Amino acid sequence: MNLQAVFDIAEICAQHGIKNVILSPGSRCAPLTLAFVRHPKIQVRTISDERAAAFIGLGIALTTHQPVALVCTSGTAVLNYGPAIAEAFYQQVPLLVFTADRPFEWIDQLDGQTIRQENIYGAHIKRSFTFPVDTQHPDANWFAQRILSEAILETKAYPPGPVQVNVPLREPFYPKPGETMAFNPEVKVIKEWHNAYALTKAQQDQLQKELLNFSKILVVAGQQAKETATQAGLQSFVRATGAVMVADIISNQHTLPEAIRYHDVFLNGESTKKADDLQPDLLISFGLSNISKNLKLFLRDFPAREHWHLQPAGTAADPFQSLTRIIRCAPQSFFTQASTNKETVNKSYQTEWRTQEELAADYLQAFLGQNYFNEFTAFARILQHLPDNSILHVANSMAVRYANIIGLKPEQNISVFANRGTSGIDGCTSTAVGSALSTHQIVTLVTGDLAFFYDRNGLWHNYLPNNLRIILLNNHAGGIFRLIDGPRQQPELAEFFETYQGLNAQLTAQEFNLKYYPCENLQQLTENLANFWNNGPGILEIFTKSEENADFFQLYRQQSPFKSK
Amino acid sequence: MNLQAVFDIAEICAQHGIKNVILSPGSRCAPLTLAFVRHPKIQVRTISDERAAAFIGLGIALTTHQPVALVCTSGTAVLNYGPAIAEAFYQQVPLLVFTADRPFEWIDQLDGQTIRQENIYGAHIKRSFTFPVDTQHPDANWFAQRILSEAILETKAYPPGPVQVNVPLREPFYPKPGETMAFNPEVKVIKEWHNAYALTKAQQDQLQKELLNFSKILVVAGQQAKETATQAGLQSFVRATGAVMVADIISNQHTLPEAIRYHDVFLNGESTKKADDLQPDLLISFGLSNISKNLKLFLRDFPAREHWHLQPAGTAADPFQSLTRIIRCAPQSFFTQASTNKETVNKSYQTEWRTQEELAADYLQAFLGQNYFNEFTAFARILQHLPDNSILHVANSMAVRYANIIGLKPEQNISVFANRGTSGIDGCTSTAVGSALSTHQIVTLVTGDLAFFYDRNGLWHNYLPNNLRIILLNNHAGGIFRLIDGPRQQPELAEFFETYQGLNAQLTAQEFNLKYYPCENLQQLTENLANFWNNGPGILEIFTKSEENADFFQLYRQQSPFKSK
Repeated sequence: MNLQAVFDIAEICAQHGIKNVILSPGSRCAPLTLAFVRHPKIQVRTISDERAAAFIGLGIALTTHQPVALVCTSGTAVLNYGPAIAEAFYQQVPLLVFTADRPFEWIDQLDGQTIRQENIYGAHIKRSFTFPVDTQHPDANWFAQRILSEAILETKAYPPGPVQVNVPLREPFYPKPGETMAFNPEVKVIKEWHNAYALTKAQQDQLQKELLNFSKILVVAGQQAKETATQAGLQSFVRATGAVMVADIISNQHTLPEAIRYHDVFLNGESTKKADDLQPDLLISFGLSNISKNLKLFLRDFPAREHWHLQPAGTAADPFQSLTRIIRCAPQSFFTQASTNKETVNKSYQTEWRTQEELAADYLQAFLGQNYFNEFTAFARILQHLPDNSILHVANSMAVRYANIIGLKPEQNISVFANRGTSGIDGCTSTAVGSALSTHQIVTLVTGDLAFFYDRNGLWHNYLPNNLRIILLNNHAGGIFRLIDGPRQQPELAEFFETYQGLNAQLTAQEFNLKYYPCENLQQLTENLANFWNNGPGILEIFTKSEENADFFQLYRQQSPFKSK
Repeated sequence: MNLQAVFDIAEICAQHGIKNVILSPGSRCAPLTLAFVRHPKIQVRTISDERAAAFIGLGIALTTHQPVALVCTSGTAVLNYGPAIAEAFYQQVPLLVFTADRPFEWIDQLDGQTIRQENIYGAHIKRSFTFPVDTQHPDANWFAQRILSEAILETKAYPPGPVQVNVPLREPFYPKPGETMAFNPEVKVIKEWHNAYALTKAQQDQLQKELLNFSKILVVAGQQAKETATQAGLQSFVRATGAVMVADIISNQHTLPEAIRYHDVFLNGESTKKADDLQPDLLISFGLSNISKNLKLFLRDFPAREHWHLQPAGTAADPFQSLTRIIRCAPQSFFTQASTNKETVNKSYQTEWRTQEELAADYLQAFLGQNYFNEFTAFARILQHLPDNSILHVANSMAVRYANIIGLKPEQNISVFANRGTSGIDGCTSTAVGSALSTHQIVTLVTGDLAFFYDRNGLWHNYLPNNLRIILLNNHAGGIFRLIDGPRQQPELAEFFETYQGLNAQLTAQEFNLKYYPCENLQQLTENLANFWNNGPGILEIFTKSEENADFFQLYRQQSPFKSK
């Protein structure tokens, strides 16, 4: 492409409303760099580590609900985007991935930073486009401009996700001295009107009729962003039908007072007491994944007679092994269109669940209120102290589990993010950084030591946001392995599963100019939590022992009133 | 696969001579962990960050010339191997990549850490295998054991490279309490006798005859490991034919006194003086990539009449745009079989090159001997002080270029490694760590600050070797951009090309218990270089200013006696 064609890329992106570009610098991508940096409507941030850069882009896209463009140079830079792209694919986050490339004739010719970039993201990208190398011919120019619109629209089309645009570039990469580049407002742009994914009147009538056949309706919300219209619909559906609504913390429906939030505590998989009373006739699911393993096991062992999954388009999953019908509509449409106003609503099913919910809440409060110092009790205090109306990022893999067990109160009104598309530990910090970059709300990341040091480069750039707070649960190991029976019983536990790591975050805080709050006991934790959120960006580090965490977690299971004998 | 089938994997690997496994811990890969850790003939090291783990494995394989097995869990762990696998693919390094997977039925079912792992490395892997989920049937067991031998043999078959073995695993992952697992020596193993890739007598006769037609023969050695037989053949070929042999530092032929080593200094691309005298009639190339851009430009602008490339098998590249014949043989065979003992050898072509070589050596020595303190002069002193018979790793992208300009003396007998398959900055430290783990020689890594902090997790594990030395050229930026005319002239240079980064390695050294030697001037550098290699593992950090480095590099170009007016 000539330089003007590259400047047209930036203009087309701007006209599609793309505002954020995360750039990882390089030679081959220099024309893209200049075009985006010089465009008045686009903000470019430069992050050298492409793995972190892509997750930071993901965090911005998650928080703004708008596509973010990534720009990297040729070679393994492109592959370092891989983990974030897979996460975006499964968490359905719009990313527009520009990968600068050598022109075709130089592929595999032993010339630097050249790999095979076409379709490089394989099965984890919605689509991959490659720009023409030469754009002199009008058809080539039409092709280039057309596929860029296609690519941008594809990032947003349901289900949203990542799209690659590979950009082969010949030298020269830079304007000649004195040569000025201009943005051409007359570029070709194709816009799209999205479908509302509503039910037809006939579908609505049938659903209303069918719903009367079920007395025990369970609604399970999977991972999704908080969305007012869906919440309102869900609330009225639950009221109108007597349905129970179960909300893992990542469903962001925990902010509804109707939500069951302690299901992971009182469902005990196959040994659940009261299973007969809790088993649904009809399961309605929407959104993406669920955290609670106990919920999944319960619904597999005690399946609903029918399981309807609400999803506008795309392949539907069957995580409870009970799926019988996929309903192609927006969840909001289903909840507002399908519910009827019955004369009297039978609330007995809700009562069954609510009784367990209250017992679980009491058990948790009593159990975690004890004056022990470990990850679990510390986590409970963290969640209590989180500022209202803030954003919480929970890292994989133990942090998000603890958070889901302990739960958040509806009135805290906290939005929760976690990389549960692929459940990797690799980009949790970067994602939180991206999130903080795109909001004025406080963003708190709670993470374990493996996830934190894995992604330390999420902090290695010149944009650390003032609203970022990091809470690090440091047990110097992958403590989750000590909580699972299998590895706990193996002689290889410490060396080959937990994998001791000796770092703490003090020097990291020093390097990145973050305030540092070490906590070795409950008193320090309490004192530090009182100041932490008022004091600018910082790392609060909680030191616990993996063995004590495991013992306490065992105790939590053993003392559970929901345990079968 | 059942647990016994997984234990058979370790046994088959051991019988194929695989000795090193780099493991990144996880739940799904637990059976592989147990099998490899318990095998008496296999050493397992556990590295949590998969990106670093894979490059560490690459470093071991590069240094031992034997396949190294990688083991990771399911999900994005697999994608984090991507950059090292691409490097292994292009640098032709044998890696056997075990990726633990969910069984097929759980793919895309919104259950944790599940992605689409079959063929995930796309075009950058030699082959991808997936084990059967169930191995009860004898045919399934035969299949599993057979493809493992196929996979291992494929890593070593010319050209060597990475091979994926995807291992879908159902629970249980661990032996039951009391259940003992044994290795079965009767597993199926297929071994292979490699071809010698020698020339036939007829080919030999023809080549000997044809070679008489060329009076100016230029041999260009691309990246390869030092190999005694090839070196001996090359030496006798050069003596017998009067050929000139040009050796970039990564060709590891710089240890031959016959090698031309300062070609990057005296070849000035299109403006090279003496081009007519230096232009070859016949170009013979072997090995992989070349560093010297001036060499590439010269050979493209002044192409040989014929260009023969020696390569046993696989797609051949044409980096000088002059290729006319691919000769399918081992370079060693060519050099020993094709050369004749002529009565009198015309050495005039060698004299032309040698004259330039000596002028270049004199210019470099005088220029770099000046008492300026910058990257270029510091690098010259580093290379002078390197311990004889040691190993040097040079990071991308400036370190390896400086090293190639300055050169190493044959008598230093230093083996040089650089990730020039893809020329990424992403795994240079990890690769050097892997190299140091597999030798008793001193391993010195010379790296820039972007490459070093990018791959800081190469140090984050429990195996830091005593023979590792790191020299960090810290200019707080991607200084290479200031050396190139294009970006240097743009207003975006500092922020969007160089990308200031504020870290130094002092705290990193403290974290990983490495001795730390800061150098702010020539005197400190000289003092520190005197002790650095005698004192255990450490980081020697050289602080320079990007602007001064750029000015001095400009001066080097301007004062060059090889510059055309």
